[in-house]
Amino acid sequence: MKTLKVPEATVTRLSIYSRFLERLDRNGVITVSSGEIAEGVGVSPAQVRKDLAYFGEFGTRGVGYNVKDLMKYTLKILGLDQNWSLAIVGAGNLGFALTTYHGFNVRGFYISAVFDNDPAKVGQKIGRLEILSMASFPSVAQNENIRIGIIAVPVRSAQEVADIMIDNGVLAILNFAPVPLSVPEHIETRNVDMSVKLEILTFNLGFRAAQSL
Amino acid sequence: MKTLKVPEATVTRLSIYSRFLERLDRNGVITVSSGEIAEGVGVSPAQVRKDLAYFGEFGTRGVGYNVKDLMKYTLKILGLDQNWSLAIVGAGNLGFALTTYHGFNVRGFYISAVFDNDPAKVGQKIGRLEILSMASFPSVAQNENIRIGIIAVPVRSAQEVADIMIDNGVLAILNFAPVPLSVPEHIETRNVDMSVKLEILTFNLGFRAAQSL
Repeated sequence: MKTLKVPEATVTRLSIYSRFLERLDRNGVITVSSGEIAEGVGVSPAQVRKDLAYFGEFGTRGVGYNVKDLMKYTLKILGLDQNWSLAIVGAGNLGFALTTYHGFNVRGFYISAVFDNDPAKVGQKIGRLEILSMASFPSVAQNENIRIGIIAVPVRSAQEVADIMIDNGVLAILNFAPVPLSVPEHIETRNVDMSVKLEILTFNLGFRAAQSL
Repeated sequence: MKTLKVPEATVTRLSIYSRFLERLDRNGVITVSSGEIAEGVGVSPAQVRKDLAYFGEFGTRGVGYNVKDLMKYTLKILGLDQNWSLAIVGAGNLGFALTTYHGFNVRGFYISAVFDNDPAKVGQKIGRLEILSMASFPSVAQNENIRIGIIAVPVRSAQEVADIMIDNGVLAILNFAPVPLSVPEHIETRNVDMSVKLEILTFNLGFRAAQSL
């Protein structure tokens, strides 16, 4: 996996293009140009063409792209031509918010189970899901074919939770605990740090001031 | 602000470099090479040099960078040489999780107020903060000098909340509602979509399959 040469920024944009294409498709649009995609998502047309070129030849000069074909292709590239079964560990406020987050379902991510080790939480419900004890993680992960784990526990428990996930077949981990995880080479992990996005905002706000250094 | 030519990926990495430099500085490290920064954060040394080159000349050939100077400079570039006063609107699970998120404080972001329009929530406390009614947003925003707003309300209320924020001096908005905001040119906004990060994971998991198309 480490030999992959597609920049992560390209994958992020592909995810955004595919949402835009889904919207066009729902609205009955048949073809779209790179310029229209670019305008729809706020990047340059050259960027759209460059991003798509990583994955082969698309579109017909002067005609553009077939919306449905390109949409399906982007979803396939993103691994979204299948459904993914997810487990969330940590049923605090963040875990609760993630469990009830509607944005996952529409992209084919299904939250199959929520776990917590707090006896006061186990057995309570978040929507349709009952909060389970971590002791049942191995059996649930196997039965539900869980391949993606979301970590929403405090820093001190994050590595232990990651280890349990990986031991039980999880291949990819989205980690909301602000600590780097140590994982084998074949496991994909990404940390979500809420403040990085804020710093992009303050960078843009502060850029002129910094220019005058 | 729209003429800014520094890629957002560079700003994101700058944010990550600055955390690494802070850690080195806390550990008493005086100088660091681009290779060491690269290894510490998991990018190539050329990428580190290219990213820093956007902002001027740094370091001494064969000696490297002075950790404290480069750390301070990256923080200044990111607009973090000052504290920022933040307001969160929406005291549901996500708003609650964001209000108690420790990652903001350490980077100079102070949550000054939390708002919600649900009468059952107004007056309750999240940590030290009392949940306020949106009716008090204008006066609180002025008194607390709030320049950054975080939107954690449902889709149907997001634009209305953004308008109130902007009318009351907010310059940058981090939007967790999965809907694009319509804002004036001089306002910075970023949407946080939890599922984009998941799709980077599934892209990496699914890449070999897609190769065989």
